[in-house]
Amino acid sequence: MSSTRPGRERTPCIVLGATGSVGQRLVALLAEHPWFELAAVSASDRSRGRSYGEACSWSLPTPMPRAAAQLTVGGIEPVEEWPLVFSALGSEVAGPAEEAWARSGALVVSNASSHRMRADVPLVVPEINPGHLALARRQPTRGAILANPNCSTIGLSLTLAPLWLAFGIERLHVVTMQALSGAGIPGVPALSALDNLVPFIPGEEEKLPRETAKILGTLTAEGVRPASLSLSAQCNRVAVLDGHTACVSLALGREVGADELRAAWEGFRGCPSELALPSAPPAPVLYLEEEDAPQPRLHRELGGGMAAVVGRLRPCPVLGWRYVTLSHNTLRGAAGGALLLAELAASRGLLEG
Amino acid sequence: MSSTRPGRERTPCIVLGATGSVGQRLVALLAEHPWFELAAVSASDRSRGRSYGEACSWSLPTPMPRAAAQLTVGGIEPVEEWPLVFSALGSEVAGPAEEAWARSGALVVSNASSHRMRADVPLVVPEINPGHLALARRQPTRGAILANPNCSTIGLSLTLAPLWLAFGIERLHVVTMQALSGAGIPGVPALSALDNLVPFIPGEEEKLPRETAKILGTLTAEGVRPASLSLSAQCNRVAVLDGHTACVSLALGREVGADELRAAWEGFRGCPSELALPSAPPAPVLYLEEEDAPQPRLHRELGGGMAAVVGRLRPCPVLGWRYVTLSHNTLRGAAGGALLLAELAASRGLLEG
Amino acid sequence: MSSTRPGRERTPCIVLGATGSVGQRLVALLAEHPWFELAAVSASDRSRGRSYGEACSWSLPTPMPRAAAQLTVGGIEPVEEWPLVFSALGSEVAGPAEEAWARSGALVVSNASSHRMRADVPLVVPEINPGHLALARRQPTRGAILANPNCSTIGLSLTLAPLWLAFGIERLHVVTMQALSGAGIPGVPALSALDNLVPFIPGEEEKLPRETAKILGTLTAEGVRPASLSLSAQCNRVAVLDGHTACVSLALGREVGADELRAAWEGFRGCPSELALPSAPPAPVLYLEEEDAPQPRLHRELGGGMAAVVGRLRPCPVLGWRYVTLSHNTLRGAAGGALLLAELAASRGLLEG
Amino acid sequence: MSSTRPGRERTPCIVLGATGSVGQRLVALLAEHPWFELAAVSASDRSRGRSYGEACSWSLPTPMPRAAAQLTVGGIEPVEEWPLVFSALGSEVAGPAEEAWARSGALVVSNASSHRMRADVPLVVPEINPGHLALARRQPTRGAILANPNCSTIGLSLTLAPLWLAFGIERLHVVTMQALSGAGIPGVPALSALDNLVPFIPGEEEKLPRETAKILGTLTAEGVRPASLSLSAQCNRVAVLDGHTACVSLALGREVGADELRAAWEGFRGCPSELALPSAPPAPVLYLEEEDAPQPRLHRELGGGMAAVVGRLRPCPVLGWRYVTLSHNTLRGAAGGALLLAELAASRGLLEG
Repeated sequence: MSSTRPGRERTPCIVLGATGSVGQRLVALLAEHPWFELAAVSASDRSRGRSYGEACSWSLPTPMPRAAAQLTVGGIEPVEEWPLVFSALGSEVAGPAEEAWARSGALVVSNASSHRMRADVPLVVPEINPGHLALARRQPTRGAILANPNCSTIGLSLTLAPLWLAFGIERLHVVTMQALSGAGIPGVPALSALDNLVPFIPGEEEKLPRETAKILGTLTAEGVRPASLSLSAQCNRVAVLDGHTACVSLALGREVGADELRAAWEGFRGCPSELALPSAPPAPVLYLEEEDAPQPRLHRELGGGMAAVVGRLRPCPVLGWRYVTLSHNTLRGAAGGALLLAELAASRGLLEG
Repeated sequence: MSSTRPGRERTPCIVLGATGSVGQRLVALLAEHPWFELAAVSASDRSRGRSYGEACSWSLPTPMPRAAAQLTVGGIEPVEEWPLVFSALGSEVAGPAEEAWARSGALVVSNASSHRMRADVPLVVPEINPGHLALARRQPTRGAILANPNCSTIGLSLTLAPLWLAFGIERLHVVTMQALSGAGIPGVPALSALDNLVPFIPGEEEKLPRETAKILGTLTAEGVRPASLSLSAQCNRVAVLDGHTACVSLALGREVGADELRAAWEGFRGCPSELALPSAPPAPVLYLEEEDAPQPRLHRELGGGMAAVVGRLRPCPVLGWRYVTLSHNTLRGAAGGALLLAELAASRGLLEG
Repeated sequence: MSSTRPGRERTPCIVLGATGSVGQRLVALLAEHPWFELAAVSASDRSRGRSYGEACSWSLPTPMPRAAAQLTVGGIEPVEEWPLVFSALGSEVAGPAEEAWARSGALVVSNASSHRMRADVPLVVPEINPGHLALARRQPTRGAILANPNCSTIGLSLTLAPLWLAFGIERLHVVTMQALSGAGIPGVPALSALDNLVPFIPGEEEKLPRETAKILGTLTAEGVRPASLSLSAQCNRVAVLDGHTACVSLALGREVGADELRAAWEGFRGCPSELALPSAPPAPVLYLEEEDAPQPRLHRELGGGMAAVVGRLRPCPVLGWRYVTLSHNTLRGAAGGALLLAELAASRGLLEG
Repeated sequence: MSSTRPGRERTPCIVLGATGSVGQRLVALLAEHPWFELAAVSASDRSRGRSYGEACSWSLPTPMPRAAAQLTVGGIEPVEEWPLVFSALGSEVAGPAEEAWARSGALVVSNASSHRMRADVPLVVPEINPGHLALARRQPTRGAILANPNCSTIGLSLTLAPLWLAFGIERLHVVTMQALSGAGIPGVPALSALDNLVPFIPGEEEKLPRETAKILGTLTAEGVRPASLSLSAQCNRVAVLDGHTACVSLALGREVGADELRAAWEGFRGCPSELALPSAPPAPVLYLEEEDAPQPRLHRELGGGMAAVVGRLRPCPVLGWRYVTLSHNTLRGAAGGALLLAELAASRGLLEG
C-alpha cells in the first residue's frame, strides 16, 4: 500500500461506465483524490474513441474536471493493465467485464449488483463489516472484485448496524422514497416524475433484505452466514434529484429507550474514521432534532454526502421503534461509497497485489 | 328526503371555507349536483362582502362555475338558515362555527378534524359504516354534525374494510406519500416541495389510527367502540399535486391467499352503489394489474376520483401481506367524500329535520 | 361527406404511431367521436402483433378506452385500406409511410413535420386558412396528405390571425416555454426537467416562423405565398406537463388601441364554429383578465383544450404590444387540432374520394 | 480601509432580514469571509429574542454556520452601532430602517428596491459602474446607502455592459424565466409551481429597464444620467429552485460579427478581479459552447455562482442578435452581489467613515 500513502505517488485507476450518473460522480470525486488518480475512462460502444468531454453528457452542477475531459473513452474490456478499477457499469454488462479485469490482476470496486451475492465476493460497508474484505483473498483470480452494496442498502445499513450490535434486530419494515438519479441516465422520463411517483423499482425490494443480511452477517470458512433478521421493503421512486429517504419501523432484540438508540447512533464510528480514510465522514450517522427532518434537499450533503442522516425517532405501536433516514444515493450510496471501500482496501494492503 | 329526490327541488346549501382548496372542490362539484344547490358561500374575514369570483384565487383546472362566481362571500356564522352546510373550514375555527350551525338546525357535513372523535358525532365512510349515522340523533342540537374522516384515512379504510370484514386485521403498518393539495392554500412553499419531500405532517400520524379504529368500530349505546387493531402510520409530503399514496403491510386474522384478498376488494360495494347515490363510484375499490401501479397522475381520477385504487399485492415477510393504495385526496378524501356522506344522510331522511 | 353527418355511419380510421403521447391523445379523443371511429392502431416494430392494451404504456389520467385496448397493433404501412388516417409518427419515419397511405387512397392527417412545407400540402389551422385545403386536390396521389402545424405554431397563429387580418403584423418576437409532453415518450429525462429548464428544442425555432408564414399566407396557382412578416423565436423546455406558453411582442401594421386588439381576439370565430364541427371550441381565442394569467395548469383545459388563451396585453416599448398566450400542446397543438382538421376536410367533401 | 485588508481585523457587520432566503445566503457567505465578520442578525418581530438557530427555518443545503446559530435575533432598527450593514429586508420595511442605519453612521448595502432610484444612491454592479460609488458621498447622512440591483438586472447587465461599451445597444427584448428562491420564504406556493409557471412577477418588468439604464448610465453633477436604450422585459416564474434564465434579443449600435460579441464577453473583467476582491469571479461572463446551454441546475454554480453564463448566441431576424443568459439569483443576484459591492466599497475607503 505504500503507493497510496501520503508522500507516495497516487495509484492510477480506470472508471468503467464513466458517462453514466454514478460514473460522473466517480470522475468528479477522483479529480481531487489524494490517493487515486483517474488515468482512463471507458464506456459503451457509442462513446468509444471520442474524448470524455465530448462523449459525456455531464449532469453535475460542478464543472467536468479538465483533465478528465481530455481522456479518450476506451472500451470496458481490459486492454491495458490498471491496478484499480471502479465499475459503474449497468448490471447487464458488468458481470463478465469485471471478471475480466479481476483476471487481469486489478482490484475491481464494483457498483453493479452482478457479483454482490457471490460467496467469495465481499459486500462491504467500511464502517460495518471491514473484516469481510478477507473474502477477496479466496477469489481464484490474480486480482479481486469488491462489491459496493445497493444505494438504498448502504444508508439503511449504517443506521441498522449500531442497533444490531447493541440490541439485536428481529424484524423491520422499510418504505423507501428514492431519488431519480438512482435510475441513472436517461433514467426516469420526466412525464413519469412530475406530479407523480412510481411505487415500483425493479429488483429493489429483493436487494434490500438480501444485501442487508449479508452485510450484517458473519464471516465463516464457507463465506458469509447472513444475519437472521426479517426485513420487508417497499420501494418508491419520487420526484427528488438526489437522496434516498426511508421510513423504518423495527423490533429490537430487547427493550430499549430512545436515549440508548440515540447514543448507539451517535457513538458509532467504525474503522474509516479511525484510519482517517480520505472519504470517511466525521460521523457515519447523524441525528437531527427538527421535527420535520431529514429532508433530501436540505440534508443530503451533510457529512460531505457520506453520512446517513436520521430523524423522527419515536415509538411504533406495531414493531417497537420507527425513524426516518436519508442518505445521498450517488455519493454515499454509490461513487463515494465505492471510493471509501477502495480506500479501506488500499489501507489493508489489497492494492499491493 | 322528498326534497332531494328526482322530480323534487334541490336542497339549498352553504359552503363554509369556500375559498380554500377543499372549498373550491365543493363549489365545483355542487355546480352540477342533482340533489343539492349551492346557495351561499362563506369564508374568513378578509373575503367577506366581495363576490366569490373576486375573493377566491381559483386553483382548479376547470373554470369557476358562473353562478358561484356571483355569490357574495358571507361570514362563517349562521345569520341565515340553510338546511345543509358543508364545512371546509380549518380546524382552528371549525369547532364553534359548526356547532353554531348545528344549533341553527342545519345538517353540517364537516371536513375538519374538530368533532371527529366526539362520542355523538358519526365519523362515516358511506361504503363502510353507514349505520353510524344513527349517532347523529343523539346530538343535543336541532341539527347535527356529521364528520368526514381525514383524507388519508378514507382511502386507506376503503381498502381495509373488506379485509376486516372477511378475515380480520390484527396489525398494520402504513407509510403515506401525500399530495400537496392536502395542505390547502397557500400550503407548502414551493421551496420545500421541489427536489424534496417532507417526512412529517402535523397530527397526521395520530389521526390515521384513531379515525380508522372509529370507522371500523361497533356502534353501542355509549357510542362507537373502536376496532381493536394496531396501526402504525408514517406520513410524508411529496411533490404530487393530488392523490395520496400509501404503502400498506398487514397481518390478517387468518391465513388467506392473494385470490381471496383480490376477491374481497373486487366484490366490495356498500350501500352508496345500492342506493345509487349520485357521487358513488361504480366500485369503491379498484385493483390494477400493472407492476408499477397505482401512480397518482395516472390513476387518481379513476372511478371519478372516488375510488381507492390498489395494486402490487404481494406477501410481506414481516406482517403477511403488503400492497399499495392511492386515492384522490381532495375528491374522495374531502369534497367528494363529504358530498357522498350528505347524499347518504339525505337518503336516510336526516335532511328532513 | 354523407358518411360523417349525423344519422350516417362513422368513418373508420387508423392511428399511426398510436402508442406515443400524441397517438394516445388521438385514441382517447376518437373513442367518443361522433363522426370517426377508431378501427385500427399501428406502431413501430416492437409493439406489432400485441394488443394495444399491452403494447401501450398509457400515460393519460383518463383510462384507456376499452375498445382500443383490444385492437391488435399493426405496422405503419398500408396493408388494409382505410379512408382516414391520423399520423402521429415521428418525423424520422413519417415521410414515406404517409405517402404510401396517400397512394393507397386515404386522407392522411399528419402531425409530423415531414410534409408541412411541401408546395402541394395544405398546412391548415381550420379557423385561419381553411381555403388552403384546396391544395390537397393538386396532390398526385389518389388520397392526400393534410398537415397539422407544429404544436407551438398552432396556438401562436390563432392569436396572430385576427391581428394580421385587422391590422397587419410587421415584426414579432416570441419566447416559448414548452411542456414536456411535446417531447413525446420517453422524451425529456426527469434529471433534465426537475429544478431546471432547457433553452433549446431542436428545429423548433426554425419551424415557428416558417409555418406561421405559410398558414397566414395566400393561396396562389403555384402554392402558398408565405406571409411577409419577420418572426424571431426562442424556444425553451420547462417543467410543465401540458401547455405551451409564449411571451409575444409585436409591431402591428398601424397604430391601434388595446380595446381594438381585445375586440379582434374576442370577435374571432372562423368556420369551425360556423360549421359546428364537433371539436371546435366555442371561441378559438379566450382573453383572461387576471394579472397573472394564463397559467398552464389552470387554463390549458379552457375551451376543451382547444382554445388559445391570452392575457397580459400591454404596450411594449420596443415593438408596440406584448402579451402572453397559452395553448394545450397535445390537444389543440396536436391530437385535437388534427381531429378538427379532419372534421373540416370531411365537411368539405375530402373524405368522399 | 485598513481594517479590511489582510493582516487586519475583520469588520463586524449585521444582517437585517437574516431569516429570509437572501439573508440566509448572506449568513452562509459571511461565515467564511476574510474581511467581514457576522456580529449580529436581525429580523421581523416574531423572531426577536430567540437564537438565530431556533428562529430561522434554514433552507440551504449546507449546514447553518455554528457561530450564527448562537446569535440572538435583534430588531431591525439601529440600537447598537455597526460599521457595516447588509440589508435583506423586504421593500415594505427596508426604506426607513436602512435610512436609520445610514444616519447611525453605517455603510448600508441594500438588496431592497426602496432606494435604488434615489438620485444620491449608487446602484452598482462592481464590474460595470464602480465609479458610481462616488454618489455615496453626496448623501446627507453620516453613513451611506449603497444599492445592489434587482436579481434579474445584475446578470443581464453583466452580459450587456461589454456590448454597450464596445458597440452600443439601441433596443433589446428580454424574457426571463426566474427561480422560485427569488420570491423569498415562504414565497410561491407549491400548488402554483408544480406543473405550472406564472407569467407575472409584480414590479419586475418595470425594474429591469429602469435599473439597467441607471447602471449603464453616466455620472453627472446631478446624479446618474440613465443610458438611453429601449428595453422591453417579460418576466415569468418557473419551477427552478435557483438561477434566473433570460432570453435576450438586441439591436446593437453597429454591424458586428459573432466573434466580436464573444470576444467582448470573454475579455470583460472589471475592477473586482483587478483588485482581487474576495467574492470576485475569475471572469464575470462565461460563454458556453453546448447547443443546449446554459441550464440552471448545471451551470448556476459556475464561477462560484458569481458569473453571468451565456450561450446560444445567434442572429435574430427581428433585432439583430439573440442569446440566452443565466445567473444565480441569490448568489450573484443578491447575497454574493451585495458582498462584492461591500468589498468594492471597502477597497475604496468607504468603510473608514
